[in-house]
Amino acid sequence: MDRKEYNSNDILAFEQRYRAMFINSLGGFKSLCLIGTRNGKGTSNLAVFNSFFHVGANPPLFGFIVRPDTVERHTLDNILETRVFTVNHVQEAFYKAAHQTAARYSEEESEFEATGLTEENMPGYYPPFVAESNVKIGASFRQKIDIAQNGTIMILAEIKYVSIPGEILMPDGFIDLEKAGTITCAGLDSYHRTERISRLTYAKPHREPEAFAQKQNELKA
Amino acid sequence: MDRKEYNSNDILAFEQRYRAMFINSLGGFKSLCLIGTRNGKGTSNLAVFNSFFHVGANPPLFGFIVRPDTVERHTLDNILETRVFTVNHVQEAFYKAAHQTAARYSEEESEFEATGLTEENMPGYYPPFVAESNVKIGASFRQKIDIAQNGTIMILAEIKYVSIPGEILMPDGFIDLEKAGTITCAGLDSYHRTERISRLTYAKPHREPEAFAQKQNELKA
Repeated sequence: MDRKEYNSNDILAFEQRYRAMFINSLGGFKSLCLIGTRNGKGTSNLAVFNSFFHVGANPPLFGFIVRPDTVERHTLDNILETRVFTVNHVQEAFYKAAHQTAARYSEEESEFEATGLTEENMPGYYPPFVAESNVKIGASFRQKIDIAQNGTIMILAEIKYVSIPGEILMPDGFIDLEKAGTITCAGLDSYHRTERISRLTYAKPHREPEAFAQKQNELKA
Repeated sequence: MDRKEYNSNDILAFEQRYRAMFINSLGGFKSLCLIGTRNGKGTSNLAVFNSFFHVGANPPLFGFIVRPDTVERHTLDNILETRVFTVNHVQEAFYKAAHQTAARYSEEESEFEATGLTEENMPGYYPPFVAESNVKIGASFRQKIDIAQNGTIMILAEIKYVSIPGEILMPDGFIDLEKAGTITCAGLDSYHRTERISRLTYAKPHREPEAFAQKQNELKA
């Protein structure tokens, strides 16, 4: 197959938007979620993020990256002000509205109203969830880590609340996101549904991994 | 639909492996890659990671999370020793071998030999690539960030070299990973191929996002 190679100088010489597209799409498929916040005055904000990553299970921690020179700044300001926010998975039925939350709306404008997504408020909880979303997480701010290399910020947060459809939770604790309709994204603008190849058994040296369902059936037999 | 809700106490009361499965699978689909390193003595190491995240395009930066109390420690030690490593996307043809690299092999054993993946060495470049992989990245260590909350470590690195099939690079710089056969994962053990829904045009206030191809065709017409 014809291959193309790029070194550091090639990449840094790319036109700016071309490089952003190239580097953003190079890293693989990504988690896609809508982060819901509310500022001290009560205005809600909703923004699409694709840098959610797992940090630990005990306590349940995750991180995501914010670029403070973009519309993501509203999300950051609200989180630092109120310390709480929601994470809502995106399904195919509303992925265009999710994408649209990235538009440069003013601080006074709520992306909920602008995109037609529905604000869902839980009694006694300040930030808004996305009613349309199947998988909803309530999170509390833990730490702000400044990344000096390029001025971006990593937010570290703890999962405090989870709401999922009962049918997607498997007996071993696995949450079947594909069954929930959660989609994935690539680059800045490419959205993808998924099709499971297999779950595999826990990796041990000198033993071939097997399809999980097959293994479970064997145990039952 | 029947929904299940969990608060912080519920989650912390889960049995340990159940909680690891639950929290790991909650965050959405993830980037899946094999990180190739070599220690100072020349022994190669290969480990599967699913926490790769984009940090910036100029300079091209990314991060990933290492748990130092696991087999991931070999990757960490080698990166801190040699400052260079490779990132290789996973395709369906060898996803079982990729999963298997997570097994607890000894420090002297190379996961390449153990799993049957092929070491590919580039003249003048120290760490090994995965020959089978369609999308290969050479990276240089930039910063180690300790996450005090749970003792994990974030590695920040810069992309210095990229090798991709020519046919997956689009005119605007978008790298079509689905065309390359890159797969995604969920939780600790679930592997998924993807099916594109659409690329969408850049989000602007008060304008509906459109499918990208359609827009491009309009521009050409």
